[in-house]
Amino acid sequence: MLSYIHKKNRKYGAIPGSLIHLGRQKTDKIKFSKIIYDEEHFDRDFPLSIENCFPPSEKPSNTWINIDGLHEIKVIDYIGNKLKIHPLLMEDILNTTHRPKWEEYADYIFIVLKLVEFKSELNEVRTDQVSIILGERMVFTFQEMERNTFEPIILRLQNSVGRIRKMGADYLVYSLMDLIIDSYFNTLEKIAEKIESLEEEIMSRPKEQTLKKIHKLKREMIYLRKSIWPVREIISKFQRSDSKLIKPATLVFSGDLYDHIIQIIETLDIFRDLLIGMHDTYLSTNSNRLNEIMKILTIISTIFIPLTFIVGVYGMNFHYMPELGWHYGYFITWGIMLILFIMMFLFFKRKKWW
Amino acid sequence: MLSYIHKKNRKYGAIPGSLIHLGRQKTDKIKFSKIIYDEEHFDRDFPLSIENCFPPSEKPSNTWINIDGLHEIKVIDYIGNKLKIHPLLMEDILNTTHRPKWEEYADYIFIVLKLVEFKSELNEVRTDQVSIILGERMVFTFQEMERNTFEPIILRLQNSVGRIRKMGADYLVYSLMDLIIDSYFNTLEKIAEKIESLEEEIMSRPKEQTLKKIHKLKREMIYLRKSIWPVREIISKFQRSDSKLIKPATLVFSGDLYDHIIQIIETLDIFRDLLIGMHDTYLSTNSNRLNEIMKILTIISTIFIPLTFIVGVYGMNFHYMPELGWHYGYFITWGIMLILFIMMFLFFKRKKWW
Amino acid sequence: MLSYIHKKNRKYGAIPGSLIHLGRQKTDKIKFSKIIYDEEHFDRDFPLSIENCFPPSEKPSNTWINIDGLHEIKVIDYIGNKLKIHPLLMEDILNTTHRPKWEEYADYIFIVLKLVEFKSELNEVRTDQVSIILGERMVFTFQEMERNTFEPIILRLQNSVGRIRKMGADYLVYSLMDLIIDSYFNTLEKIAEKIESLEEEIMSRPKEQTLKKIHKLKREMIYLRKSIWPVREIISKFQRSDSKLIKPATLVFSGDLYDHIIQIIETLDIFRDLLIGMHDTYLSTNSNRLNEIMKILTIISTIFIPLTFIVGVYGMNFHYMPELGWHYGYFITWGIMLILFIMMFLFFKRKKWW
Amino acid sequence: MLSYIHKKNRKYGAIPGSLIHLGRQKTDKIKFSKIIYDEEHFDRDFPLSIENCFPPSEKPSNTWINIDGLHEIKVIDYIGNKLKIHPLLMEDILNTTHRPKWEEYADYIFIVLKLVEFKSELNEVRTDQVSIILGERMVFTFQEMERNTFEPIILRLQNSVGRIRKMGADYLVYSLMDLIIDSYFNTLEKIAEKIESLEEEIMSRPKEQTLKKIHKLKREMIYLRKSIWPVREIISKFQRSDSKLIKPATLVFSGDLYDHIIQIIETLDIFRDLLIGMHDTYLSTNSNRLNEIMKILTIISTIFIPLTFIVGVYGMNFHYMPELGWHYGYFITWGIMLILFIMMFLFFKRKKWW
Amino acid sequence: MLSYIHKKNRKYGAIPGSLIHLGRQKTDKIKFSKIIYDEEHFDRDFPLSIENCFPPSEKPSNTWINIDGLHEIKVIDYIGNKLKIHPLLMEDILNTTHRPKWEEYADYIFIVLKLVEFKSELNEVRTDQVSIILGERMVFTFQEMERNTFEPIILRLQNSVGRIRKMGADYLVYSLMDLIIDSYFNTLEKIAEKIESLEEEIMSRPKEQTLKKIHKLKREMIYLRKSIWPVREIISKFQRSDSKLIKPATLVFSGDLYDHIIQIIETLDIFRDLLIGMHDTYLSTNSNRLNEIMKILTIISTIFIPLTFIVGVYGMNFHYMPELGWHYGYFITWGIMLILFIMMFLFFKRKKWW
Repeated sequence: MLSYIHKKNRKYGAIPGSLIHLGRQKTDKIKFSKIIYDEEHFDRDFPLSIENCFPPSEKPSNTWINIDGLHEIKVIDYIGNKLKIHPLLMEDILNTTHRPKWEEYADYIFIVLKLVEFKSELNEVRTDQVSIILGERMVFTFQEMERNTFEPIILRLQNSVGRIRKMGADYLVYSLMDLIIDSYFNTLEKIAEKIESLEEEIMSRPKEQTLKKIHKLKREMIYLRKSIWPVREIISKFQRSDSKLIKPATLVFSGDLYDHIIQIIETLDIFRDLLIGMHDTYLSTNSNRLNEIMKILTIISTIFIPLTFIVGVYGMNFHYMPELGWHYGYFITWGIMLILFIMMFLFFKRKKWW
Repeated sequence: MLSYIHKKNRKYGAIPGSLIHLGRQKTDKIKFSKIIYDEEHFDRDFPLSIENCFPPSEKPSNTWINIDGLHEIKVIDYIGNKLKIHPLLMEDILNTTHRPKWEEYADYIFIVLKLVEFKSELNEVRTDQVSIILGERMVFTFQEMERNTFEPIILRLQNSVGRIRKMGADYLVYSLMDLIIDSYFNTLEKIAEKIESLEEEIMSRPKEQTLKKIHKLKREMIYLRKSIWPVREIISKFQRSDSKLIKPATLVFSGDLYDHIIQIIETLDIFRDLLIGMHDTYLSTNSNRLNEIMKILTIISTIFIPLTFIVGVYGMNFHYMPELGWHYGYFITWGIMLILFIMMFLFFKRKKWW
Repeated sequence: MLSYIHKKNRKYGAIPGSLIHLGRQKTDKIKFSKIIYDEEHFDRDFPLSIENCFPPSEKPSNTWINIDGLHEIKVIDYIGNKLKIHPLLMEDILNTTHRPKWEEYADYIFIVLKLVEFKSELNEVRTDQVSIILGERMVFTFQEMERNTFEPIILRLQNSVGRIRKMGADYLVYSLMDLIIDSYFNTLEKIAEKIESLEEEIMSRPKEQTLKKIHKLKREMIYLRKSIWPVREIISKFQRSDSKLIKPATLVFSGDLYDHIIQIIETLDIFRDLLIGMHDTYLSTNSNRLNEIMKILTIISTIFIPLTFIVGVYGMNFHYMPELGWHYGYFITWGIMLILFIMMFLFFKRKKWW
Repeated sequence: MLSYIHKKNRKYGAIPGSLIHLGRQKTDKIKFSKIIYDEEHFDRDFPLSIENCFPPSEKPSNTWINIDGLHEIKVIDYIGNKLKIHPLLMEDILNTTHRPKWEEYADYIFIVLKLVEFKSELNEVRTDQVSIILGERMVFTFQEMERNTFEPIILRLQNSVGRIRKMGADYLVYSLMDLIIDSYFNTLEKIAEKIESLEEEIMSRPKEQTLKKIHKLKREMIYLRKSIWPVREIISKFQRSDSKLIKPATLVFSGDLYDHIIQIIETLDIFRDLLIGMHDTYLSTNSNRLNEIMKILTIISTIFIPLTFIVGVYGMNFHYMPELGWHYGYFITWGIMLILFIMMFLFFKRKKWW
Repeated sequence: MLSYIHKKNRKYGAIPGSLIHLGRQKTDKIKFSKIIYDEEHFDRDFPLSIENCFPPSEKPSNTWINIDGLHEIKVIDYIGNKLKIHPLLMEDILNTTHRPKWEEYADYIFIVLKLVEFKSELNEVRTDQVSIILGERMVFTFQEMERNTFEPIILRLQNSVGRIRKMGADYLVYSLMDLIIDSYFNTLEKIAEKIESLEEEIMSRPKEQTLKKIHKLKREMIYLRKSIWPVREIISKFQRSDSKLIKPATLVFSGDLYDHIIQIIETLDIFRDLLIGMHDTYLSTNSNRLNEIMKILTIISTIFIPLTFIVGVYGMNFHYMPELGWHYGYFITWGIMLILFIMMFLFFKRKKWW
């Protein structure tokens, strides 16, 4: 959980804008890949050294440089200097606990998003930060570790599927954002399956384990919300953007992203309501069961405690107890106990306890 | 439940705007019907092939083409191309988990709405998506399967009831929306009946089944809200629309729709409050009952356990127990027990336990 | 409860603007009364036939026509035609489940309000719809049934009390609204009395009945809110009205109405909080009581079960049980039991159970 | 509680603006006091008759007239006429259940505020209404009964402490408002003490009484909120006032009032949260205790009930029971019971029940 | 807790703007330190007397005067007079319960912030107020007691690390605010650790102590929120400031502060949700345990109470009880009891109680 807090204290009193990597080292070595493409060409360099990334590309092609791994500060620093990006932004890239954001500057747009993944077996949400810098005919993406997240887009670029090669770097950024938001749907679907299985569990035979799983999931949903909620604002900024880097042809697509993110947030809300509902169901089922248990105890006790008292009476050893000498005393006692038993039975019957 | 999540993962990494039908195949074959009408004429073609639908109609009549079934992608694609509609919108028509929306373009207005139905016996809400495209003198409606939902409007068109034939395609769209919102009232009424019957059940003799039904209904209400809430915004966009496709004469009627949708949403809120209230009633009734049960157990135990102890004492076999030899020992013991019994009785009386 | 839902399904597929009376027939026959007044004259016709109501009056007097009963559709239709009122509005008058509203048109203002009444003995809120149409020197009021609600205003008109005869039709409408809002205070006061009596009940000796009454009242409050909340918006529209039908001299008074409605809504909120608080009190009192009950049971059981075990031991019939032969065995056993009893007593004393 | 509702029904159907005193008669006779002051002079007349109050003062001094008691309607009516104040405002002064408000008119500003007091021993909040009318060089204050609330300000006027004599009537009004808001801090502090003592009570040994006190206090907080919340809006109107009656030199001070009222409202919110928290603590402590109680009962029962069964077996009187004749039968039985006892003990030990 | 309320009553009726120190005396003697710096020079005087602080510095250097301790009113008064600061602001500096604020005046900006610290072992949040006055080339900071909070900034100034010496007094204020907000991260991290340890405790074996700790922490969070929430507004005012005292070069950095404070507030919200969740977990775990306890009690009672009744029957001393004479009576009884036992066992098995 601690990872949700920006560990600023590792640099308490440090100069704002100084680069410190805040996050686990998720990859061994920073890896670079460079894709240069335009309507006619596609070229991919991988792996390559940092020096080969600059200058990004000769005009008029588009260049996409992807950086996997954030732990080598001097490498990140080098990129920041090359791109003339404000140190505070480079700090944000390194701080992997940063909240999603969209910031427009004169020469570039800076975007932070979260990839989310639901580990169904661990009942846990994992997030990876993706930072995107969109410049003139140029896209930089920063990931915490090497993943093949962007493979579908690389393939579309390579095979020139759809309009991706025909459009500019802004459309590439849109495609990346669309892909990330698509990953939210995957996550939601896995969570939905988990919720369904928990719901079944709680309806058939709830155990303490079930409850703990629900609580765990509720907690994970709190974290997930934090990663996804700000994306709505981001898409909204995208839609209203008047940066020259975003062309009108790309703006059209942002409405679609907005519809998706609204649907995701609504689904998150539904999930929360469902989890609250399940907790309530659990509690009321439990309360029901307690009543059932107590009914059994009460019925048994109420019937047999008085009877036990009666047989106790005739187990006393007083020298003079006239009933003991009666010939049918024993049978009369049985008769009385039977009548008592029937009365108790009718009492509980009338109370509709069974 | 999974159906509430846009199954984007079936096309994770696919090109935005590529047509994929997301939803169950609810009808066997796509069916087309075409109605051409103006103040003097009414003409209905049904069934007809897709090619006969285009061109929609010669001026100055209005054309309404209804398409039942969405699973033949190439048919939908054909229509999209003919109408020159943006692929992203055609994708929305096919994605039957889309949230309701109203979007205005230069040449057409695109509307997504949900028909809802409450299956009382299953305690379940079902939704069907209806997409409407309003163009110049032209309306397209897309439904998931063949239903006679629009029959009342077809009849009004045929018999020229009211002003429907005198007014344009926009009034037809208004009439369709009015019909769909009317269907919400039907649904609410059925739910109200369900709530009333559950309320009676909970007041007379609540069972665990009742609770489960309440939880089920609460969950269905969550889904229903999701389908109906966005409609308010849609009507509000309708009211403020400055599209040339919506004539002032039709705008007047949108206020009525708005009143209705507000009333529906308020009723949904009331239902939610009622269901929460019922859950509370159930819990407190249960807690009450537990108290009642425990009182009985406690009264019985408190009275008979001490008495059983006393008779136990005189059941001991010590050789020297002076009381045993007393002539009235037995009766004195009964006396003492009677006094104890009365004291206990008075104790519970004073505690007002009965 | 069903009455809270606009029963649109009775006309599913009907033409919008077609007149159907939605509500119970609360009066036998529609009754008309006409009052014509100005600063010098006052004239009241009652009962009179519908034809005599038109034309409303010769200038420059004010005319107030009150209609009791809404079930004769053709009568309402006749009035609508005479006044040239949009059929959708006439539909609203007939639909007695309509939410309160204020709508301004070029020639008239249309107002829907609810009279509310709390039946203390039934623990139930009843509402009656009052529709008001304010035209030039002309007021129409529609009520569901004959009631003497407006009697105080008729008396003030007749006796020329205050400024009512000196001012125009708009002031009459203000007076009617003031009267209706006054009736809310009455209702609140009755509910307050009910709440107080329930509070006393819950503090002294809560029963399951009390809880049910609280739940009923909570539910009634939900309905009441629905009738009263929109009135705030209505008054607010009144205050900001720039219709030529509302003169500045009358506008001054609207501020007073606004203060009142705010106070009513605040009181409703307080009532809801009080009812929630009472429910909590009930639950925690119940939980307290359960603890008390269980303490008694536990004390009795914990003291006597071990003692009963001891006496049981010496009730065994083994041939060789040395203690049985001891001369003081019996008394030693009593001693041991006494010590045990005292220990238990001290144990519970230390736990502060009494 | 009923006093929180504007008892409009005592005048249902009355003319708006007719003067009726709504509140208890808190003082015997209306008392008047008049203070005339400017930078050099200070003059106090007390008591004096109503006629001597008018005309308030010759220019250019400031006049402050304080009226204690509101029950003599004709006196209030006389003042209203003299000051030419709208009857609706005079009605507001008399209605002591009015919510706080600030209203600006051409010639005067009308302010309603509540003095609040917390009676610690009664656990009750009491409110008194103070109405202030600020005119040109003239202040009128109306209180429900004679109190020395304003003494500190009279003393500052008399002794010319601070800038109060140098500044105008508006500064006097500011000083009065500051004093009233100061009284809220006093009230909050007393409530804080109460909350602290209740918190201690609930932590050490909660009783049903404690719970009732918490509920009472929660209810009082609901009322208190109603009296204090609207003051924020009042101060905010004060700050933004462009009335000629409020001079810029006085406006500077309003920011300070705003800070104070925000702090008071935040503290009210904290108190509410604390009280809710205490209720939760109580409930969970109770649930804890129930578990403790049940554990004791279960341990005792589970250990001794089986043992009692065993000794019961050998208390049977069958003629042929071989164990009874065994020489060590009695001791073997004890051995078995001891083993059972130890097993039970270990069972509860493993369950960590002690 | 009382310290959260502005103890205005110590000066009820006092003149607004009169200086009274509201807070504990946290330091023995007021201490002054003066730092004069520009791009080339750095000079620190410490300790020094109050007279030496004025005039702050000769142009064009920046002066930072830090005052530790607020209890000597005449010293504070002297400073206020020297700086010509409005007495109401000086009052705010002395009132250490003031809420955070940012106020811009013609010649200076006045800022109140809270340093917060979480004492993990005491489970308590402590706050210290820091007031900052930013003038032309001049910064005053007021702290409640001597602390080395600002040491990192003094070091950066001394060693000219980063841009701090190159920029003006406004950047120094930004650095101070950044440092204070950094301290919030530290606090949150400590609280996160506490929450994690409590979460573990509650999952493994919850005790009443755990619950009390949770409630304590929840209460502390309420206070913490009050200190941190208003900071968002402060940073937002900073960002939108158009004071000539804040240069554009410094404004750039305010965005970073805003990101941080949003993250802190979101984390606070998450903590609250986690604590609520823990409380729920505790309650449902408890309810689970109660069920477990009751199951054991019920199983034992239900099995042995009827058996004890049977053995009681044959412990009766009736002269004529035929079964007693049967040779296998004893063994038959055992058989019957065994069968009963097995039936009970199967009953509980079917109910899945173990």
